[in-house]
Amino acid sequence: MKKQTRLNRISEEKRATTLLVKKLGKKVHLDDKARFAVSFDGSKLSFIPLAVIRPRSEQDIEVVLDLANKRSIPVTVRGGGSSLTGSASPVRGGWVLDLSRWRKIEMDEEQGLMKVQAGARIIDIQKRAEEAGWYYPPDPSSKEHSTIGGNIACNAGGMHGGKYGVTRDYILALQGLLPTGERVSWGGHYKKFACGYNLRDLWIGSEGTLGVVTGAILKLIPKPQTKWTVLTVYLNEEKALLAVRELLNERIQPSILEFLDNSSVRCAERATGVSFFPKQRGKPLLLVEIDGSRGQVKMDKVRVLDWVKKFSLAYQEARTEAEAEKLWQVRRKCSGAMFEMGDSKLNEDVVIPLRKQVDFYRFIEKLQVQSGLSTPTFGHAADGNFHVNIMYSRENASEVRRAKRAVFQLMKKVVALGGTITGEHGIGLAKTPFLHLARNKAEIKAMKVIKTALDPKGILNPGKIFDRFEVWKHKPVKVRLPWDHH
Amino acid sequence: MKKQTRLNRISEEKRATTLLVKKLGKKVHLDDKARFAVSFDGSKLSFIPLAVIRPRSEQDIEVVLDLANKRSIPVTVRGGGSSLTGSASPVRGGWVLDLSRWRKIEMDEEQGLMKVQAGARIIDIQKRAEEAGWYYPPDPSSKEHSTIGGNIACNAGGMHGGKYGVTRDYILALQGLLPTGERVSWGGHYKKFACGYNLRDLWIGSEGTLGVVTGAILKLIPKPQTKWTVLTVYLNEEKALLAVRELLNERIQPSILEFLDNSSVRCAERATGVSFFPKQRGKPLLLVEIDGSRGQVKMDKVRVLDWVKKFSLAYQEARTEAEAEKLWQVRRKCSGAMFEMGDSKLNEDVVIPLRKQVDFYRFIEKLQVQSGLSTPTFGHAADGNFHVNIMYSRENASEVRRAKRAVFQLMKKVVALGGTITGEHGIGLAKTPFLHLARNKAEIKAMKVIKTALDPKGILNPGKIFDRFEVWKHKPVKVRLPWDHH
Repeated sequence: MKKQTRLNRISEEKRATTLLVKKLGKKVHLDDKARFAVSFDGSKLSFIPLAVIRPRSEQDIEVVLDLANKRSIPVTVRGGGSSLTGSASPVRGGWVLDLSRWRKIEMDEEQGLMKVQAGARIIDIQKRAEEAGWYYPPDPSSKEHSTIGGNIACNAGGMHGGKYGVTRDYILALQGLLPTGERVSWGGHYKKFACGYNLRDLWIGSEGTLGVVTGAILKLIPKPQTKWTVLTVYLNEEKALLAVRELLNERIQPSILEFLDNSSVRCAERATGVSFFPKQRGKPLLLVEIDGSRGQVKMDKVRVLDWVKKFSLAYQEARTEAEAEKLWQVRRKCSGAMFEMGDSKLNEDVVIPLRKQVDFYRFIEKLQVQSGLSTPTFGHAADGNFHVNIMYSRENASEVRRAKRAVFQLMKKVVALGGTITGEHGIGLAKTPFLHLARNKAEIKAMKVIKTALDPKGILNPGKIFDRFEVWKHKPVKVRLPWDHH
Repeated sequence: MKKQTRLNRISEEKRATTLLVKKLGKKVHLDDKARFAVSFDGSKLSFIPLAVIRPRSEQDIEVVLDLANKRSIPVTVRGGGSSLTGSASPVRGGWVLDLSRWRKIEMDEEQGLMKVQAGARIIDIQKRAEEAGWYYPPDPSSKEHSTIGGNIACNAGGMHGGKYGVTRDYILALQGLLPTGERVSWGGHYKKFACGYNLRDLWIGSEGTLGVVTGAILKLIPKPQTKWTVLTVYLNEEKALLAVRELLNERIQPSILEFLDNSSVRCAERATGVSFFPKQRGKPLLLVEIDGSRGQVKMDKVRVLDWVKKFSLAYQEARTEAEAEKLWQVRRKCSGAMFEMGDSKLNEDVVIPLRKQVDFYRFIEKLQVQSGLSTPTFGHAADGNFHVNIMYSRENASEVRRAKRAVFQLMKKVVALGGTITGEHGIGLAKTPFLHLARNKAEIKAMKVIKTALDPKGILNPGKIFDRFEVWKHKPVKVRLPWDHH
């Protein structure tokens, strides 16, 4: 933009903001502190917006969208702000619509349905469901902080995905507003519909660019009666990933099947100060949980133990909840210690078809050698969703260059293996350079014409998904977030 | 359209068809027999197209779409042609793209995935899955004739929906072409993605108006070890539907839970010549099937029998596969005998939230009295998907008037109860008059702008979903279809 145009734009946006304050009064926050707090998400990429709006009703949101459309003001909707991709960072400035206080949860115990507002936290949804004997399976690691609105925006997953699916699988209905401000709802208190186009599932995963979600109806499942956990260790990653295939080939559906490579395991050992298998320090692990009725778990346990004995070097079974929690430390603590290997992380969450997992890990080993960077890798083996962490130092130009090269190589390999570039994080800003690797021109064109059709002024979360943004060129803000590892 | 414009249009379409024949040769069929055969679907609403194309490759389809866009020719894609709504009837003429011979099925036994072409029949998909120890649960009653492409078009359901969901829940990926002719695929050999907009689920249920589906990757589940069936009879519909609620409140998920009202039961009794409960002739029934591991079914059976004894007047358990098949006759044969109550049927498939099912049935009783028409009603009680059949004689003007009035009353009531107007049939032509009852203006507008964005020339299956069509004003053709009841 030319300088004069830009200045005109800025003063137009300021005037619009003044008008907004006239209409919504104290629901609009203009102070530096409020604006800084919503200027970034888990990616720590910060862009200060002009104003933060904390609406109290859908009418308030109508006012915001109406004015935003008239004056072409970017609007970025925000929940817990824990996105790792910058999808909640208001990269084009404008207004941030903060729904984190929209936390109402209404439980329908009879039908196993839950009506929630967009700002309801996942942990609260899970607790409320379990109190009533029901279960909400999606469990992103951000669950104590992230909201259902944000989880819907990126179609969040988590460790239960292999058996139980992702956020999409538990959304019966969405309520909200079109980018142009009209109120809509997609779906209802029923499990099936064939009544016109399914915009519910189009909205899910569209990262807040196609509509403002204000509420949802969730479908719950009966709470599994019991579960059982075992931690197993392998000679190398190939053996561990072949064991995954053997287990799934037995038609056993573990509720959790987490893979940790040697590098991730060493991080966990450093972070916790313990090694779960002292004779097998730094060897790759699989953490397996099965759940279901007591009878089912009893039967499956026998089969899983047979499998464990056949394929692993050693194992530790959890006999109590406390023992299980101890085993879980290995998975929970591995991420934090990664920052000893570099102050910055390209945090990818690629998806690899089952049959290609061994090939994929061989590639990761080569990538580590070629790039000279650490690439600790762990993930949800049952649905092939691997978290590859490319660690580098931001002040070291050579490392930045190598990290950039490595992440492009990674994404190309993932696509060549028939996988996809993100399983549960979404594109946001961080993965925009790779979108064209995973989707052809016609596919991207189709997405863009839908965006333009629904949001002709392009006001909702602009700059995301389609516009190239190179995260390694941007310096994150120095803040400690509640979910940062200490 | 004025007469001259219409004549110009017709000659333009003829010239385009001649050009198409030049390009695709014998793949284009112009004879009356071929054109009549694809002129209608299960609705028997017939509109003769200009040509039928049986493409052999995606390139052939590219040629068709390219020319259709240049010359504005309607293109209607066709699979088994068993739609009940007219969604496969080429209401605007033009060309029919017949994919019913695209029947290839490739099974990935290890991952439980299946790659299928759009014309693969549901029955063949189910058989192939079961041979490999896997299971494809959606089972529309058309399954011997309908294709996966058609099932995707209307997001077909069937009796297993309450426990296992609908077609959408088993589609990992779609392959096909945009209305503008470019090849695309949505999803892949993986269970999760968060990589741009989800057009897979937008295409599913869009009735062939947003793209041409040529193939899909299906997700299968392990085949349940065993199942058990029981038929139960109740004093009246209210008692039967309250029993449904009691069963679901026990957190038992029957694989099938079919409800038949007294009128449907009497139809079945006439059709089969037997009554399953001679002392309770013409009383409403619930047909219950549970499935799962042997241990699970054994446990659930005890609980279901407790429930049966508490709430039903009498029951019959199937001890063998043959006995189960005998019980199934009551459900399979009820539809045929309905035509003794009228030569025409408004065949609706509304969805009602669990808590409102009793209110709903009270309304159906009133509707029957007020309209003076028979309205036999049966359906999938676990997901609230009820088939209401409004029977009338087409030659009787008063009955036609009353049927029309009744169907509008029905749809209004369904929406007032928080339900939706179609669960698994789709809108097609038959339900277009009711769309605005179920969706508000903004919702319909959003759907239409998406249609225009993806299909700017409006060539794919025009006239469906959005344009009002009054089925009772159109005379169906007299043909006997393979799935007609004899």
